[in-house]
Amino acid sequence: MKQEFRTEHDFLGERTIANHLYYGIQTLRAIENFKLTGLPISKEPVFIKSMAMVKKAAAMANLELGVLTPEVASAIVAACNRLIKGEFADQFPSDMIQGGAGTSVNMNANEVIANIGLEYMGHKKGEYEFLHPNNHVNCSQSTNDAYPTAFRIALYFKVNELLEALDLLQNSFAEKGVEFERVLKMGRTQLQDAVPMSLGAEFKAFSVTLKEDIKRIREVQVLLLEVNMGATAIGTAINAPANYPKVVTDYLGKITHLPITLAEDLIEATSDTGAFVFLSGVLKRTAVKISKICNDLRLLSSGPRVGLNEINLPQLQPGSSIMPGKVNPVIPEMVNQTAYYVIGADLTITMAAEAGQLQLNVMEPVIAFSLFNMLSYLANAFVSLKEKCVDGITANEKECYDMVMNSVGIVTSLNPLLGYEECSAIAKEALKSGKSVHQIVVDEKGLLSQDKWDEIYSFENMIHPQFIAN
Amino acid sequence: MKQEFRTEHDFLGERTIANHLYYGIQTLRAIENFKLTGLPISKEPVFIKSMAMVKKAAAMANLELGVLTPEVASAIVAACNRLIKGEFADQFPSDMIQGGAGTSVNMNANEVIANIGLEYMGHKKGEYEFLHPNNHVNCSQSTNDAYPTAFRIALYFKVNELLEALDLLQNSFAEKGVEFERVLKMGRTQLQDAVPMSLGAEFKAFSVTLKEDIKRIREVQVLLLEVNMGATAIGTAINAPANYPKVVTDYLGKITHLPITLAEDLIEATSDTGAFVFLSGVLKRTAVKISKICNDLRLLSSGPRVGLNEINLPQLQPGSSIMPGKVNPVIPEMVNQTAYYVIGADLTITMAAEAGQLQLNVMEPVIAFSLFNMLSYLANAFVSLKEKCVDGITANEKECYDMVMNSVGIVTSLNPLLGYEECSAIAKEALKSGKSVHQIVVDEKGLLSQDKWDEIYSFENMIHPQFIAN
Amino acid sequence: MKQEFRTEHDFLGERTIANHLYYGIQTLRAIENFKLTGLPISKEPVFIKSMAMVKKAAAMANLELGVLTPEVASAIVAACNRLIKGEFADQFPSDMIQGGAGTSVNMNANEVIANIGLEYMGHKKGEYEFLHPNNHVNCSQSTNDAYPTAFRIALYFKVNELLEALDLLQNSFAEKGVEFERVLKMGRTQLQDAVPMSLGAEFKAFSVTLKEDIKRIREVQVLLLEVNMGATAIGTAINAPANYPKVVTDYLGKITHLPITLAEDLIEATSDTGAFVFLSGVLKRTAVKISKICNDLRLLSSGPRVGLNEINLPQLQPGSSIMPGKVNPVIPEMVNQTAYYVIGADLTITMAAEAGQLQLNVMEPVIAFSLFNMLSYLANAFVSLKEKCVDGITANEKECYDMVMNSVGIVTSLNPLLGYEECSAIAKEALKSGKSVHQIVVDEKGLLSQDKWDEIYSFENMIHPQFIAN
Amino acid sequence: MKQEFRTEHDFLGERTIANHLYYGIQTLRAIENFKLTGLPISKEPVFIKSMAMVKKAAAMANLELGVLTPEVASAIVAACNRLIKGEFADQFPSDMIQGGAGTSVNMNANEVIANIGLEYMGHKKGEYEFLHPNNHVNCSQSTNDAYPTAFRIALYFKVNELLEALDLLQNSFAEKGVEFERVLKMGRTQLQDAVPMSLGAEFKAFSVTLKEDIKRIREVQVLLLEVNMGATAIGTAINAPANYPKVVTDYLGKITHLPITLAEDLIEATSDTGAFVFLSGVLKRTAVKISKICNDLRLLSSGPRVGLNEINLPQLQPGSSIMPGKVNPVIPEMVNQTAYYVIGADLTITMAAEAGQLQLNVMEPVIAFSLFNMLSYLANAFVSLKEKCVDGITANEKECYDMVMNSVGIVTSLNPLLGYEECSAIAKEALKSGKSVHQIVVDEKGLLSQDKWDEIYSFENMIHPQFIAN
Repeated sequence: MKQEFRTEHDFLGERTIANHLYYGIQTLRAIENFKLTGLPISKEPVFIKSMAMVKKAAAMANLELGVLTPEVASAIVAACNRLIKGEFADQFPSDMIQGGAGTSVNMNANEVIANIGLEYMGHKKGEYEFLHPNNHVNCSQSTNDAYPTAFRIALYFKVNELLEALDLLQNSFAEKGVEFERVLKMGRTQLQDAVPMSLGAEFKAFSVTLKEDIKRIREVQVLLLEVNMGATAIGTAINAPANYPKVVTDYLGKITHLPITLAEDLIEATSDTGAFVFLSGVLKRTAVKISKICNDLRLLSSGPRVGLNEINLPQLQPGSSIMPGKVNPVIPEMVNQTAYYVIGADLTITMAAEAGQLQLNVMEPVIAFSLFNMLSYLANAFVSLKEKCVDGITANEKECYDMVMNSVGIVTSLNPLLGYEECSAIAKEALKSGKSVHQIVVDEKGLLSQDKWDEIYSFENMIHPQFIAN
Repeated sequence: MKQEFRTEHDFLGERTIANHLYYGIQTLRAIENFKLTGLPISKEPVFIKSMAMVKKAAAMANLELGVLTPEVASAIVAACNRLIKGEFADQFPSDMIQGGAGTSVNMNANEVIANIGLEYMGHKKGEYEFLHPNNHVNCSQSTNDAYPTAFRIALYFKVNELLEALDLLQNSFAEKGVEFERVLKMGRTQLQDAVPMSLGAEFKAFSVTLKEDIKRIREVQVLLLEVNMGATAIGTAINAPANYPKVVTDYLGKITHLPITLAEDLIEATSDTGAFVFLSGVLKRTAVKISKICNDLRLLSSGPRVGLNEINLPQLQPGSSIMPGKVNPVIPEMVNQTAYYVIGADLTITMAAEAGQLQLNVMEPVIAFSLFNMLSYLANAFVSLKEKCVDGITANEKECYDMVMNSVGIVTSLNPLLGYEECSAIAKEALKSGKSVHQIVVDEKGLLSQDKWDEIYSFENMIHPQFIAN
Repeated sequence: MKQEFRTEHDFLGERTIANHLYYGIQTLRAIENFKLTGLPISKEPVFIKSMAMVKKAAAMANLELGVLTPEVASAIVAACNRLIKGEFADQFPSDMIQGGAGTSVNMNANEVIANIGLEYMGHKKGEYEFLHPNNHVNCSQSTNDAYPTAFRIALYFKVNELLEALDLLQNSFAEKGVEFERVLKMGRTQLQDAVPMSLGAEFKAFSVTLKEDIKRIREVQVLLLEVNMGATAIGTAINAPANYPKVVTDYLGKITHLPITLAEDLIEATSDTGAFVFLSGVLKRTAVKISKICNDLRLLSSGPRVGLNEINLPQLQPGSSIMPGKVNPVIPEMVNQTAYYVIGADLTITMAAEAGQLQLNVMEPVIAFSLFNMLSYLANAFVSLKEKCVDGITANEKECYDMVMNSVGIVTSLNPLLGYEECSAIAKEALKSGKSVHQIVVDEKGLLSQDKWDEIYSFENMIHPQFIAN
Repeated sequence: MKQEFRTEHDFLGERTIANHLYYGIQTLRAIENFKLTGLPISKEPVFIKSMAMVKKAAAMANLELGVLTPEVASAIVAACNRLIKGEFADQFPSDMIQGGAGTSVNMNANEVIANIGLEYMGHKKGEYEFLHPNNHVNCSQSTNDAYPTAFRIALYFKVNELLEALDLLQNSFAEKGVEFERVLKMGRTQLQDAVPMSLGAEFKAFSVTLKEDIKRIREVQVLLLEVNMGATAIGTAINAPANYPKVVTDYLGKITHLPITLAEDLIEATSDTGAFVFLSGVLKRTAVKISKICNDLRLLSSGPRVGLNEINLPQLQPGSSIMPGKVNPVIPEMVNQTAYYVIGADLTITMAAEAGQLQLNVMEPVIAFSLFNMLSYLANAFVSLKEKCVDGITANEKECYDMVMNSVGIVTSLNPLLGYEECSAIAKEALKSGKSVHQIVVDEKGLLSQDKWDEIYSFENMIHPQFIAN
């Protein structure tokens, strides 16, 4: 079949485009101009859908306010609906990191919607006199408002997915907390033996600390819903009909089913990347926590013979091409690396946000690239960590208990009876001689009766220590 | 006068201490062990005061619960009161960055309070049988709870100071927003001429964006008030009397006049540094914003002859050792550098938080060092920026207006009348020929009557553009 | 066509694999275990080729040292040659970020090579008794040496590509330096008018600073060639025949045509990631420089009417969906964002390197992921910047000259004649009155004859100032 | 005694200064303008001395080239000599982080030198007509060249101190390498048991990896000696006599006894911060390594009963206010925190370097602040780590050996005899049953004779494994 072409122009000149393509001349230029990561916008379908929701809301507001005809508005809405369904994703080929502050993404959407709409109206692609990417699809808008608004909505949806994964993960930790409630083990501070605790309490703490982050992320997520539709160029609302900002925001709320609000100060909102920095910062916090947790899982499962060996992670794959029988904690290791990625990406975002000058932050594309990746990778990591690791963790109960009773740290329980200095002397002697605390305290020095010892060092009292002064 | 000495011991041995010193053997060891920054704990008086508040609350709770005698408790309280007043600050000489997770700071407080208390009781320093740093001052506590609790309270107080400075600064921007409301200037996106706006709106946006951060910081500040008193070692509450956590938390609330709450899960709370990471993250956000603002101030005041020259910053000092008459934007430059410091310190905190293992984060001292500096430097920067820069900014009103009328960007206002493509052609011609938009549109092409032009390009319509379709 | 399957096993059990696949059970597990970025190893063909070079060198050394038969060795070599040619790239499907310190990549290579080799020998895939992934392909190796060695070689090749792009870029700046040599403009420090200079000198400086980085990168590149082949597990050389490390290194040098050397201390070399941190650090330095240069290009081309407007960047695409005629500096903007990515990735690498524990750095996969991306993105950015921006820059010569003569900063040239204080007074008056320096100095105050003025402010003397004391 | 005052002026006005002060009006303004860190320039005596060396070299060059009289030049030299000796350090009170790109530091030096020189000439302070801060002390200079040159020289000297400390530290590790050469222990990868190794080899590797960094740091250190003296404003050499750059550089080499060279391109050199970014990057690399080493030391000394317990660190201070007998690895902990500081400071420098615009990097003061601190803190950390930790480390030889023989990882040695799959089965059985490898291989399955076992598992063969195929 012979390939057909159409000719399009912009104020820089003319270009020929294969006629099966829905995007137009400006997208073509973007493809040629931005050859960086090789990762196209189409990698983030939710971003395209969000962009279509924005365009749909704008068309409906423009119709209501009389600046678009019903015919044109319906064509735009019909086209947007198809994008929202996930069609035409391959028509968004430009690189995720691009110059121009998102203009290429916005124009890509404008062009694709125009051409879908033109066909819907019975015209041919490129007959923009009937439905124009700028005059109609982009009517009452600017990249400065359409792009960040779509970006925020896309982030909101992706955060939902993240939270779902995180909630399942914290729940898995919580269940292990219950399962291991009666497993006594030594707690450690500074990698040195501290005092006894329940292994369940350790896992419960992982759950609690992640649950806390779900709260924090939700708080930040809400901030994403404040948009600047109607700001048009630099927040002046130039070229937008009166009342448009409010009307379009209401439509957008209805289309997305989200409680979207209009920013108080459109000038400020147009250059502000605070919500992105904040979201990135809170994701970094979660990354720090999950990395700490994975460090702990790797420590507690170290060994099996020459490590702490308190817990066993599920065995997923042979761990060495040379050492037989070796199995590694591959999932926590993968999650640690995800955390390092996230922390690095947070820095990228920080620098991009700081570099915004005057009335617009031109570096938003790399912020989008980074935040989308952070959210995807973290969600993937949470799912893996839950399904392939935490769910299957088992405890080495006997080993844990033996370590406690063999420790010196249990002398701390005697502080209220014997005082810190006496206890220090006992500890010192134990460490020097290799004896157990019981040997010294009960057998040799008779500082405690066996009964009192049993009371203090009962399973119950070690897991939930009661104050026993005499 | 002959210097007198006393001898103290711990389980590692004996040491001689000059008798005028209130600190004891463990502080002495800390001084010797930690020689890093040369910046002592005493640089942060609010930290010492907060530590004293914690110790006072503990003594009162211990008294109420019967584990300290009234005599001992009163001595501790009396000593704490003097520290709270700011006395004895020089008795906290150990380096701000130290190993041991804060044990040296906690023991320093325990020793100083014990010795002040001993003198209050009529004893001599070092007669710890009457009032012991560990058995009495540290009673029902551990470094694991006393140190982070005091740290949190100190941060809370310092955040208050920061917010005060930030509020004055945003207010100064708001006032300039009003003052410059009628100054018309070109807005810029991507450093390219965009559309006209009010200089006042630009300054108001600075105020709005900072006010937003005051809200965010306040939200995080509240999280600092969740403490883990009673956790003792690793959160098990070992060696603390029943009900102690609640009682001591109540006392601490009364002493600090802050709505302090007890953490839900003491195990989790003891190793968790999430609040610090979060506070750091939000301060980083503020730093990013203020850096962006200072970049803008430096751009807008660039020149005077070969730059944008829209505003003038107060002249504070000659700007060159060789170029006569040169004056530099030294305060914004200082603030930019403060922001870079803050962003770097946020990374330090991130790494320190990630490095926490198992039941305690041993890296808290460098977190404290970093957060204290961030808060101090930012507050100082805000004060300077307000007083020495923003308050005195003036506008070059005529230059601003002339630039607008000479610009091509004003053609955007004609989009609704002439369409994007016609306007593009006008813009292109203007740029090529060097003509003004008015010349082309009114004089040459007669696309607009002078009256219509005047309506569209009235001062009022350019600052608050109305949609003018025909 | 009916799909055929074979069954493979490892010590964790059995799995069925579609028979057309060359990879085996361990790769299958890796695919299932690591679902993170969606970016497979096959995205970096040079990594696969380098891995094949390592396997080939090992096979040849093993043959020479008598631990592999000629038949087996030839089969391995034949298989490796096909991978080196770029065949079978699709057989490397596992995620670029993975746990296990690269074991999955190493086993993937071992399995694919074994199965290609088996077919070469006339056997079927999976008949590992004739050619075993571990016993033969991995013979005398471990992931601990094969993986980092291949990684280093791949980096070396990618650095070559980067340097080529960087050299073209610096050369383009150098050519502009010559082209603009006679364009006089104002230099600026702190965005304030400083003294006159040549625009050519400004562009030449961009070239010089990048040339310097080519040198630095080359120095670091050499460090990549120090490998730890023969280290096997943790650097003990366990299971490797005597003299193997030297022999395999020599073969590797021949195969790669690179001056590869053996690390002095194999224990150290096996866990050391210093070369990666160093390479990342120097790439970060280049990113910082290129970002600064792009900031400058955007500043100098700002306007066109309301900015500095000293130079014009090539016009690549319409710059706004709403503002007619606007064109943005999209390529420098893309490069700035690349720099922020690189700086963030450097942090990821830093954290990953710091997290290495004991005898191996398990976080190497994220280091590989980050460095490969940094190198690709930077090389792409350099090519774009050269071809789509720098090559086409033009100067606004007249505007530049007018700004110089209108400036106050030119008074600096009078310091040697009139002294700093007198010049300061002149500058102050000029700024206050709006007069030019010439007006004050020659016309009004007669401090200089017109002849002397002409001598000092000749084009030649402003571009290459001579000291003119009287 | 009545305080006397003098009046000074600059082009912004007049100020009164207490007459005992050697600094003048511009320093006074700097003190008032920059209230940020509270840390004055005088905290870095080497910076003041380096600045004096620069001023001395300039005076000598100016004398030689006839632009200063012998009388004035000798006064300047005499004043500089006193600063070089360390006198008048308290006359440098301005904050280390300041706006103005170092102008305040340069003018501070100019003023102090002028006033010392005036007294030397028999005049009074402030009689600048005889010896002027700008016209004479700053003659042929600008902040743009004098400040970065002094900064570079100061860094060079500080790097020397760092290298001395680092060399002592690596040597201490090397000595432990020898001392522990015959201590057999299990190596670990991914915290899982790997294969046996010598503890000495582990410590030797620490030495080797740090020695490598000494080389890298030295390479970067050399780059600091390329200076831009004679650049004056923005690198044009305006106001400097012909040949001055070469002459002053030669004098500076003689005064500092360092092989200082002149930058090839003064325009480039004046805004370039590449050497600082590079030095920071390499210090970050060292920080990463030292942090990894300290992580290892803390792991290896973990316990004493419930950890790895392979080595003992010197006991420096009681490790807990509540847990008797607890001793913590406080020095490695301090060093880890130092590393996090350094990594954060590297980011500050990165951002500051990136923010340099056009002909000068105005953010150099925060680069200086950060690099000076990095160098001081790292040097202090190295000294502490050597003296208070590494020198006193002892090995738990028996525990190390027992862990090896009890491990499963030793089965790896049997690969060449039994093949990877058979060994995997043995490992699996050992792990499942709790039996030792010896039990299974020799006692139960008779796969090896006791003699062969003894050969393979001899102390010598485990530390330096020979390939034993049959």
